[in-house]
Amino acid sequence: MNVSQQIETRTAASERNMANAIRFLAMDAVQKANSGHPGMPMGMADAVTVLFNRFIKIDPSLPDWPDRDRFVLSAGHGSMLLYAIHHLIGFADMPMAELTAFRQLGSKTAGHPEYGHTLGIETTTGPLGQGIATAVGMAIAEQMMAARFSSALCNHFTYVVAGDGCLQEGISHEAIDLAGHLKLRKLVVLWDDNGISIDGSTDLSTSMNQLARFRAAGWNAQSVDGHDPEAVAKAIARAQRTRKPSLIACRTRIGKGAATMEGSHKTHGAALGDKEIAATREKLGWPHPPFFVSPEIKTAWEGVAMRGRMAREAWEIRLDASRSKKRYQQIVGRQLDGEIAEPLAKFRAAHRKRATKVATRQASQMVLEVVNGATDLTIGGSADLTGSNLTMTSQTKAIGPGDFKGRYLHYGIREHGMGAAMNGIALHGGFVPYGGTFLAFSDYARGAMRLSALMGLPVIYVLTHDSIGLGEDGPTHQPVEHLAMLRATPNLNVFRPADIIETAECWEIALGEKKTPSVLALSRQALPMLRHTDGDENLSARGAYVLKEARGCRHITLLATGSEVEIAVAAAERLQADKGIEAAVVSMPCWEKFEAQEPSYQMEVLGDAPRLAVEAAGRLGWDRWMGPDSAFVGMTGFGASAPAGDLYRHFGITADHVVAEALKLLGRVGREKPLTASQQTGTDIVRTSQET
Amino acid sequence: MNVSQQIETRTAASERNMANAIRFLAMDAVQKANSGHPGMPMGMADAVTVLFNRFIKIDPSLPDWPDRDRFVLSAGHGSMLLYAIHHLIGFADMPMAELTAFRQLGSKTAGHPEYGHTLGIETTTGPLGQGIATAVGMAIAEQMMAARFSSALCNHFTYVVAGDGCLQEGISHEAIDLAGHLKLRKLVVLWDDNGISIDGSTDLSTSMNQLARFRAAGWNAQSVDGHDPEAVAKAIARAQRTRKPSLIACRTRIGKGAATMEGSHKTHGAALGDKEIAATREKLGWPHPPFFVSPEIKTAWEGVAMRGRMAREAWEIRLDASRSKKRYQQIVGRQLDGEIAEPLAKFRAAHRKRATKVATRQASQMVLEVVNGATDLTIGGSADLTGSNLTMTSQTKAIGPGDFKGRYLHYGIREHGMGAAMNGIALHGGFVPYGGTFLAFSDYARGAMRLSALMGLPVIYVLTHDSIGLGEDGPTHQPVEHLAMLRATPNLNVFRPADIIETAECWEIALGEKKTPSVLALSRQALPMLRHTDGDENLSARGAYVLKEARGCRHITLLATGSEVEIAVAAAERLQADKGIEAAVVSMPCWEKFEAQEPSYQMEVLGDAPRLAVEAAGRLGWDRWMGPDSAFVGMTGFGASAPAGDLYRHFGITADHVVAEALKLLGRVGREKPLTASQQTGTDIVRTSQET
Repeated sequence: MNVSQQIETRTAASERNMANAIRFLAMDAVQKANSGHPGMPMGMADAVTVLFNRFIKIDPSLPDWPDRDRFVLSAGHGSMLLYAIHHLIGFADMPMAELTAFRQLGSKTAGHPEYGHTLGIETTTGPLGQGIATAVGMAIAEQMMAARFSSALCNHFTYVVAGDGCLQEGISHEAIDLAGHLKLRKLVVLWDDNGISIDGSTDLSTSMNQLARFRAAGWNAQSVDGHDPEAVAKAIARAQRTRKPSLIACRTRIGKGAATMEGSHKTHGAALGDKEIAATREKLGWPHPPFFVSPEIKTAWEGVAMRGRMAREAWEIRLDASRSKKRYQQIVGRQLDGEIAEPLAKFRAAHRKRATKVATRQASQMVLEVVNGATDLTIGGSADLTGSNLTMTSQTKAIGPGDFKGRYLHYGIREHGMGAAMNGIALHGGFVPYGGTFLAFSDYARGAMRLSALMGLPVIYVLTHDSIGLGEDGPTHQPVEHLAMLRATPNLNVFRPADIIETAECWEIALGEKKTPSVLALSRQALPMLRHTDGDENLSARGAYVLKEARGCRHITLLATGSEVEIAVAAAERLQADKGIEAAVVSMPCWEKFEAQEPSYQMEVLGDAPRLAVEAAGRLGWDRWMGPDSAFVGMTGFGASAPAGDLYRHFGITADHVVAEALKLLGRVGREKPLTASQQTGTDIVRTSQET
Repeated sequence: MNVSQQIETRTAASERNMANAIRFLAMDAVQKANSGHPGMPMGMADAVTVLFNRFIKIDPSLPDWPDRDRFVLSAGHGSMLLYAIHHLIGFADMPMAELTAFRQLGSKTAGHPEYGHTLGIETTTGPLGQGIATAVGMAIAEQMMAARFSSALCNHFTYVVAGDGCLQEGISHEAIDLAGHLKLRKLVVLWDDNGISIDGSTDLSTSMNQLARFRAAGWNAQSVDGHDPEAVAKAIARAQRTRKPSLIACRTRIGKGAATMEGSHKTHGAALGDKEIAATREKLGWPHPPFFVSPEIKTAWEGVAMRGRMAREAWEIRLDASRSKKRYQQIVGRQLDGEIAEPLAKFRAAHRKRATKVATRQASQMVLEVVNGATDLTIGGSADLTGSNLTMTSQTKAIGPGDFKGRYLHYGIREHGMGAAMNGIALHGGFVPYGGTFLAFSDYARGAMRLSALMGLPVIYVLTHDSIGLGEDGPTHQPVEHLAMLRATPNLNVFRPADIIETAECWEIALGEKKTPSVLALSRQALPMLRHTDGDENLSARGAYVLKEARGCRHITLLATGSEVEIAVAAAERLQADKGIEAAVVSMPCWEKFEAQEPSYQMEVLGDAPRLAVEAAGRLGWDRWMGPDSAFVGMTGFGASAPAGDLYRHFGITADHVVAEALKLLGRVGREKPLTASQQTGTDIVRTSQET
């Protein structure tokens, strides 16, 4: 045996032990919690040990170092793989006590890896396929940063461990198609090719040739024995050299090492049992008690951290020497507010004088033209509806294969992939992504949008054609329940501005958020400017405000959002002129912001007169604001195909109908005499309204 | 020129004119509406003419003939292609007047094809990818019917026209993987391979080799000149013979034939303009005015209908001669209610005596065991969570490649594909599909679930692990906003049963629906039986009912659903025992059914005492039932990873907390003295509660 052979043998022995440490920590933690997934960490322990031991560049003492490699555990149920490694390489928040508290309340070791909850978790995973699709966004951001700075400052890989589930989910198709197209050469996916899913063999539901599939999408694809460290290492090295994104199919046995259950789907999602674990200790020659790692193995793992720290220190020297240092730090730190506040204030001031009538999607584009001119942090895009969403501006040249200097992404007809890629771009840092589709197709992006909210990422969804106002395309394209769906989602701002001023305000708020994603629900149809106040306070920031106050005592309050504020204003004017009824109009561009106001402000805005809400959407959620004496004008079912104006009339979302319902309401709640002496003429008409 | 050559030449000339008739009807209708998509109908006119003229077996005079070929326009924006053909082959509801009313209110020619709205529309399309994924369900149902009856009774193809968008959407991956795996040899997809999407060339966003991709999934794949009728015909004939599902890439020019705009993405989604259309008439030698088809061309198209009618008549003779006729007609007519009503009544009666404590997902499986034993119309399945959703019973053997006798589908890790396939199975007829996943992953299936509701298909979604009660898997797997999302969807029953009796009731209602899909939100955790009434009335059918009435006058009403009804009952008992406060408990297993009740019943149930609602989900929507004097106990944000019991305590969804909130509420609304003289002791305690 020559020296090189000796080193190799020693490495192999060491890596076998390093991998077995993962296996036993996973087995022990799942057993103690009596909950979790040991099969995947055990199956992928060998391959992932090689990845970390020989390749990955992270520094546990500085988990947010911008040029670190990203490691995404797309098969998030195998979280113990990650927690075990984090313990072994010395993340500060992952002492052994956390492993023994796996899946317990308040522990750092949540059932699935959660971004922001535990150091070094690059993205929340668990809903299958999200990890790989988010990693595509990270790899895009890496390439965009590298195109802006030298490779001395930005030069890292994005590694993904994906399972069969990740590759079966539809989102994986959107992700790999986009990645292959853009030639994201620094994206490397290790597929845990174990042929097992929860129901049993993957033969039950798939016959896909994954290698051929990835190659069809423009990927480099290799297949190796996932338990052969040298083969895995060679494949990763080759993947690093190719000009394409890479798939490495690691042929593994689920629950590898388990005494009797290796290869069985029973190892997937349940504790193995004390007996099996004891037998496995026997079989693998592992003399240690549960939750114990020998100093030699710990030292071997700490080598990973040491290599990472050295790489980080070298990078810092390069950064200090770089002329781009200041700009780099500014971008990574995302100092957006300062850049856009003044231009946006000017924009609002200018338009207040003009009374510009435009669709809010158009207003949004006008705002974006200002924003994108003031900062280069924003990255636009659309799921193949650029001309409809109006997400492109004069500054946003598209990126393309091998060309990452641009600021716009043609995401393709891939709403879900777009959402996940935006999450990845935001997680990577350096950019603020916004992307467009129709509001109705937020259905397709739901999985990723929920993760934006759960992770608290300041991603902005530009969702146009936000009601039956979309018109002829019909009910498949007309949102009805989507505002409710999005408003029900925790930590998601849903903005529905009524005119150009509110649109600018809502963009300003959205771009100022640090931990909350935003939806901008925007109209296809033109809307008049309704906000003519003198002040430059951002009124949308309070969520709702009195757009038009009643003269004297309110008889009724009309609540509305977006395109229906115009209708409410017209109805209020008609109520006053025709019936002498004093109606206030409240515009509610953001329920979430209004919910956060003091009760006193809420009551001041909502008032104690009967309330009528109007929105071209379903009623669900509105009762929160309508209160007891109230009525709702909106949608009760799906839309229809016709010109927008016809639909508004057909579904009764008109000023006429609001007036009629207001009169009915005032009659019903026994406010037959709500009027002052000088307005007594209105009284009769209110009574009459009960007959209609 | 010999006779066969002459016939071929004449066929070619005829088919060219038949195709041009589609082109001009599409151009004219879009022009008149000034809205719509001419590019796709023009590009695919040649290929689809060949498909209809030489292959498709439909009878416009009997659009619902069960053994017809199914034609699915997955690229639904090309609806004028379908409407033009429907006009030309004589569908009764498609006179020329409908084409001139394209995209107008009340017309049969909606912007996108809508199932149930227009004769012969096999499925609603428009949201891209849904068509191809729904067609997979149709093709599965065809194979399942063929496995039950002879090919003399069931032997038809499912044809799909898909665009680039359909193939980019993630759902297409789930669909083609499943179809390839099951070897759905009678599924034929014609892909409109025109290289254009809305933003411009598909080069902007994809480099996918679609043929290689489909082959990787186990499909037969061919590529032909989509404007060469003989090449298209040969490819379809070959596709019919292969033992796999087939893709035919039809290389086409979008807007084919247009004078100057052929090949441009500008023909995709807007009228061409009078000038361009006039020039196109010139170029193609089309002397006819708008909306005119010459008698010769009409006669040629009517040949399609004639061939279909003959095929249908021959089939009817075979059916009459078949010994399976009665069973066949019963299955196609779906007489389910009759088969399951009695067994389910017995089930409920038996369990009323037993007080069975089980998770509602387990109760669901017990009910399914009864249902699947009483009928063989039900087809079960799960998106790889069979053991968790408990959707399999002793009767449901799985189907597999080439074996369609079974009654269970391993849909794979494909929630979206499962939803669409279930839609296709329901649309095909012959079966009642139900399928399971976790409630949180209804996110992934949203696109298809919305179409279930929009089309009014009696598909049943078994959504288990319906709250933080899921426990350790954590917030990614714990639904919070999903009940609101689903309740906001029109025409969708959302059931959340509280115990085994309600679970049986809800299943009975769901299986009895003809035009409404259902969601069964079911618990992971065991729940005690709470319903002990003597009668056998299905109380869940009223949506909500008083489970536990107050003794005498109600001081408070507790509203709850599913797993929280147990908590409400415990709280009510404690309020009574500890404080002398009389609380009624209302179980609300289905809001939609309750909404449909008479106001008098609603008021009787809800009562006029202050109300407190408890549900382990977000509040959005609850105010509708809570009214003005009310409180809510539930979730205000995302969940966490921990054992279920710990989470319920952590988030305060406990009887203790309900009691505390009830006392606060009663204090707040000034009901310090809600009690009768005999219960005066309670008064002080209510007052005390204000201090907590």
